Amino acid sequence: MIRFDSDYIEGCIPEILEALQNTNEEQTIGYGVDPHCENARALIRKAVGRADADVHFLVGGTQANITVITSVLKHYQGAVCAVTGHINEHETGALEACGHKCLTIQSDNGTLTAQQVDQLIYDHYHGSAVEHTVQPGLVYISFPTELGTLYSRKQLEDLYAVCRKNNIPLFIDGARLGYALASDKNDMTMQDIANNCDMFYIGGTKVGALFGEAVVITNPAYKKDFRYNIKQRGGMLAKGRLLGIQFEQLFTDDRYMKVSRHCMDMAKKLADGFASRGYSFAFEAETNQLFPILPDKKAEELAKEFAFTPWGRVDENHQIFRFVTSFMTKPESVDRLIEML
Amino acid sequence: MIRFDSDYIEGCIPEILEALQNTNEEQTIGYGVDPHCENARALIRKAVGRADADVHFLVGGTQANITVITSVLKHYQGAVCAVTGHINEHETGALEACGHKCLTIQSDNGTLTAQQVDQLIYDHYHGSAVEHTVQPGLVYISFPTELGTLYSRKQLEDLYAVCRKNNIPLFIDGARLGYALASDKNDMTMQDIANNCDMFYIGGTKVGALFGEAVVITNPAYKKDFRYNIKQRGGMLAKGRLLGIQFEQLFTDDRYMKVSRHCMDMAKKLADGFASRGYSFAFEAETNQLFPILPDKKAEELAKEFAFTPWGRVDENHQIFRFVTSFMTKPESVDRLIEML
Amino acid sequence: MIRFDSDYIEGCIPEILEALQNTNEEQTIGYGVDPHCENARALIRKAVGRADADVHFLVGGTQANITVITSVLKHYQGAVCAVTGHINEHETGALEACGHKCLTIQSDNGTLTAQQVDQLIYDHYHGSAVEHTVQPGLVYISFPTELGTLYSRKQLEDLYAVCRKNNIPLFIDGARLGYALASDKNDMTMQDIANNCDMFYIGGTKVGALFGEAVVITNPAYKKDFRYNIKQRGGMLAKGRLLGIQFEQLFTDDRYMKVSRHCMDMAKKLADGFASRGYSFAFEAETNQLFPILPDKKAEELAKEFAFTPWGRVDENHQIFRFVTSFMTKPESVDRLIEML
Amino acid sequence: MIRFDSDYIEGCIPEILEALQNTNEEQTIGYGVDPHCENARALIRKAVGRADADVHFLVGGTQANITVITSVLKHYQGAVCAVTGHINEHETGALEACGHKCLTIQSDNGTLTAQQVDQLIYDHYHGSAVEHTVQPGLVYISFPTELGTLYSRKQLEDLYAVCRKNNIPLFIDGARLGYALASDKNDMTMQDIANNCDMFYIGGTKVGALFGEAVVITNPAYKKDFRYNIKQRGGMLAKGRLLGIQFEQLFTDDRYMKVSRHCMDMAKKLADGFASRGYSFAFEAETNQLFPILPDKKAEELAKEFAFTPWGRVDENHQIFRFVTSFMTKPESVDRLIEML
Repeated sequence: MIRFDSDYIEGCIPEILEALQNTNEEQTIGYGVDPHCENARALIRKAVGRADADVHFLVGGTQANITVITSVLKHYQGAVCAVTGHINEHETGALEACGHKCLTIQSDNGTLTAQQVDQLIYDHYHGSAVEHTVQPGLVYISFPTELGTLYSRKQLEDLYAVCRKNNIPLFIDGARLGYALASDKNDMTMQDIANNCDMFYIGGTKVGALFGEAVVITNPAYKKDFRYNIKQRGGMLAKGRLLGIQFEQLFTDDRYMKVSRHCMDMAKKLADGFASRGYSFAFEAETNQLFPILPDKKAEELAKEFAFTPWGRVDENHQIFRFVTSFMTKPESVDRLIEML
Repeated sequence: MIRFDSDYIEGCIPEILEALQNTNEEQTIGYGVDPHCENARALIRKAVGRADADVHFLVGGTQANITVITSVLKHYQGAVCAVTGHINEHETGALEACGHKCLTIQSDNGTLTAQQVDQLIYDHYHGSAVEHTVQPGLVYISFPTELGTLYSRKQLEDLYAVCRKNNIPLFIDGARLGYALASDKNDMTMQDIANNCDMFYIGGTKVGALFGEAVVITNPAYKKDFRYNIKQRGGMLAKGRLLGIQFEQLFTDDRYMKVSRHCMDMAKKLADGFASRGYSFAFEAETNQLFPILPDKKAEELAKEFAFTPWGRVDENHQIFRFVTSFMTKPESVDRLIEML
Repeated sequence: MIRFDSDYIEGCIPEILEALQNTNEEQTIGYGVDPHCENARALIRKAVGRADADVHFLVGGTQANITVITSVLKHYQGAVCAVTGHINEHETGALEACGHKCLTIQSDNGTLTAQQVDQLIYDHYHGSAVEHTVQPGLVYISFPTELGTLYSRKQLEDLYAVCRKNNIPLFIDGARLGYALASDKNDMTMQDIANNCDMFYIGGTKVGALFGEAVVITNPAYKKDFRYNIKQRGGMLAKGRLLGIQFEQLFTDDRYMKVSRHCMDMAKKLADGFASRGYSFAFEAETNQLFPILPDKKAEELAKEFAFTPWGRVDENHQIFRFVTSFMTKPESVDRLIEML
Repeated sequence: MIRFDSDYIEGCIPEILEALQNTNEEQTIGYGVDPHCENARALIRKAVGRADADVHFLVGGTQANITVITSVLKHYQGAVCAVTGHINEHETGALEACGHKCLTIQSDNGTLTAQQVDQLIYDHYHGSAVEHTVQPGLVYISFPTELGTLYSRKQLEDLYAVCRKNNIPLFIDGARLGYALASDKNDMTMQDIANNCDMFYIGGTKVGALFGEAVVITNPAYKKDFRYNIKQRGGMLAKGRLLGIQFEQLFTDDRYMKVSRHCMDMAKKLADGFASRGYSFAFEAETNQLFPILPDKKAEELAKEFAFTPWGRVDENHQIFRFVTSFMTKPESVDRLIEML
């Protein structure tokens, strides 16, 4: 069985295992204030071009999302997001369990437009019952989105301008940030991301690490006391250095982007393979998550050899499926899959 | 200014004021276990035809909703409701503030169908990531709905059958229950309501009382320890007898239904008035909330003399407006409004 | 049975019933922004000597406490309080249900000292694991305390000075504020209260009203968006005017203090009665809650005619009991009780 | 600098690093249902002697605590614990942030007695205001305790008997379980633990692993839907196998107990060192956390070469300090420390 069902099916880049080995007997203080974490912070600050940023390391995405969002919101505020947003759909109500509503916006491709967000905020303050409804307190987007799609620089700048106009912070979930940046459809750098939001996270779990997400807070208004939130939400890793060591390796020698580019090469090859066989996509094939529409028969055939995920029925004989490449996907696996299409 | 903007703009039925006067010097124990509350409970049990029901008195609707729903749900469960449901739209995220997500279903007229609920539950358990999504733990409907519409007996029975099949309780928000039951479009009795759900509440605030809602729990699985929930959610009224005294009066001499019928007479008269002037309604005019579509000009004219609420624009020159009659609406007020249409 | 078990066993002052009668047919807008509420706000601002204060009306004490405290605290902060504080002991974890811990301080008589609070805050910031513990975010005291005791002006000023030094707001629960102010052991005015905290509430439920508490916010930092919190915590009364009408009456002709003085006259008389019979008190008899220590035999005897509450065993033959007078306690009831001692 | 400030200052046992290396290119399904997790579950079931147990893997202790406890408690219930319990003191109110109060019991040495728990439950149900207080819904103890002390088999059996009598589950936090079991003061086996509670967790982070805790649920009443809770609290590790792989290694060849015994050998040696120099302990030296009382001078001297933690002042010249050994502590480090005493 060759797996294309997610980008968290393998381990990590070899340099991380090597570093874990080399540091194993080191004694360091716990909870993320050791030299490895400090060094990783410095490397990330440099990579994102913001010497002023606060950087915190968390274990996983849901944890990163609730920790960041609850650090920003007042009790009566909610998070504006696409109806397809990860916080709305696939975190078992983790944010609601912390007391906050997702204020959802319909979206065909997983992105939000500046105009939609501006309208939602306007409507809130101009409704007949303002304080009877949840106040928008933060805008959450994913880059790339849960449907593998991208924002252009212009779209992100417009969205962030609306956020600043309305005095509401913008948070970018970058669980797969590397794949967005490495896409040939992308026109942004990591610095552009850092400069067009108030906080974001750089996903490690799906991009080269065993686990780990690096939260980057650029807006000083949201830096204070952040570590209390980490501890309260269960995210304060005792051996915090495990995260520092991993991000040290990922942000040395441009490895984060190198493995991202490999993944995107595999994704592009696979997307071309689907296209060349005449299959269309439910959403634009812009990153490492591909959503081809396949006949049931073909899918059954492929399922004998490959793992991938059904994503909704199109008609009696066709479904959308999700195929995902990762930083460790082998070219021969993609070749074999294309051969079978 | 004559107000048609809500059914909570006036005081209460005169018998309640009289009873408050007569009982003012009585000394009773607090927190809802006094003789007035006990008597009111007995009267309500009789009116709903369920000698086995637990009855609790709460001050308001949002409080009743969160107290009931949090008494039922486990942390990882949410409440299924129409996107227009009061808990989803107009309670400032009170339910989310208690940790629970609203699992919303689109609805044109505010009702849910048995088929929609069945599908949502089926989809939850047959998705690719069951425990990554919020488990449906209760179904919430309003009768009448927030848009003034009704369920037929058949629709409610079907819905409740689906709930029982899926082993998920049904809770009916009856903030305006009297008006539903008094509508000439309705085919149910209060007993039918009690027998087709697991718990519901009988709204007093909007139907004759100064304030107060009577929660009726018929399913024994949800009776235990309910008073802890009341206290924890801030709903344990010190002078609990104030609620008992009011419901005693409302459920004596069939007053609850009498004042409901008066309100519905006024609503019917007003609805006929709109219709006879050629105005159409955005939603079926079935209870005391009417949603006529009016030209902006006419609305401006009426606004000089009457209070009512804009409910969304239809086109450049027309909006939906909400007009509401109450148990104290005077016939001459309705006459005057119709005259001005 | 003559009840001395609480101060919420009767109705209200007659002027309130009269006003409810007189206003019953008035039509007003809902949710606390009607002319009665506005007038009551003006009267309260005047009484507390703070024209700049925001005033909000809530139905009960637990509701007032959670609404105020959650409006102030960030998620990782808790409320400093005496271990005997109402929020810690008798609200079924309402504050924890909103996500916040009570940071308790031992207290023999229900009060907190400035030194204790200063120390707790110092310890928090100088511990070995600052962000592993809940950050003190607000200081909660009751005046009078749950044990009927008082703060002197000096004690309150010192406490507030410590709060300001540490940049942490002080909230005073005034469920029985009138009785504190009317005590002959008290050396403060209502203006002193308003000037020595950031927010407090004036209890109506136990002091003359049917129900209702008036939250007074003097510190501008905590005024914004308070109504969202009211709605989210279930405290937005539809017929908000019911609260306005009651506080209008209580704050007309100094009635709030007049009924408080009556209650305190009764309490003093009763306290003197206990003392003259040689009974001692578990806590200083300073307001309308008295905690005499009685032999079990005497208590059994009294229980045949009077309602009062056991408050803890002292030795094999003695218990502490709580006796409470109210704004409606009749002199002859006190006389009869004293006679029986 | 030689560190004795915690047992999470180093990496892990070498077999884990080797296994991570060997499995790095394997493709497995995510979220803890892969073959490594299944195998680790089987090994743990065997080790605890309960073929019927459910086993779940979580990343850290706070996360394990809130996930387990919130899976058990109803909204109005709290967790009974020692005032020194980790959930009460050092988790930044994580449990309260999930809505639940810690119902604390005073304890001199970190343990709870059966009698104390029985009394607390009795008092709750026999108080004057039952539902005004938080209902005890679970008993939480740590083995060993936060102060390094132990329960005897008799003490645990008595405590569990009280829990069963009162129909309230017992949860054991075993963050350092191995060290308790390996102590020469201990008279229990891992099977005894499993048979004397409803759920517990086996700590990996502090006992040989890089990170990870294995939750073992023996009472069938608490098994259902547990994975929803894991996801909702942010604990569903994408590459769940990382936990499976670690526990596979720890529970092969009795390694978990072997490394525990090494740690306890080091602790015993160090404790004897303190004792032979005439230092006394603040709490019994039973596991790998030692709390000697040292003169300030001596402490200053030691601090030049060793890391350890101040734990409270005893008198003007003496403080309690915490010294901790770990599964990787080197004999020569202990020798050097003893030499310096």
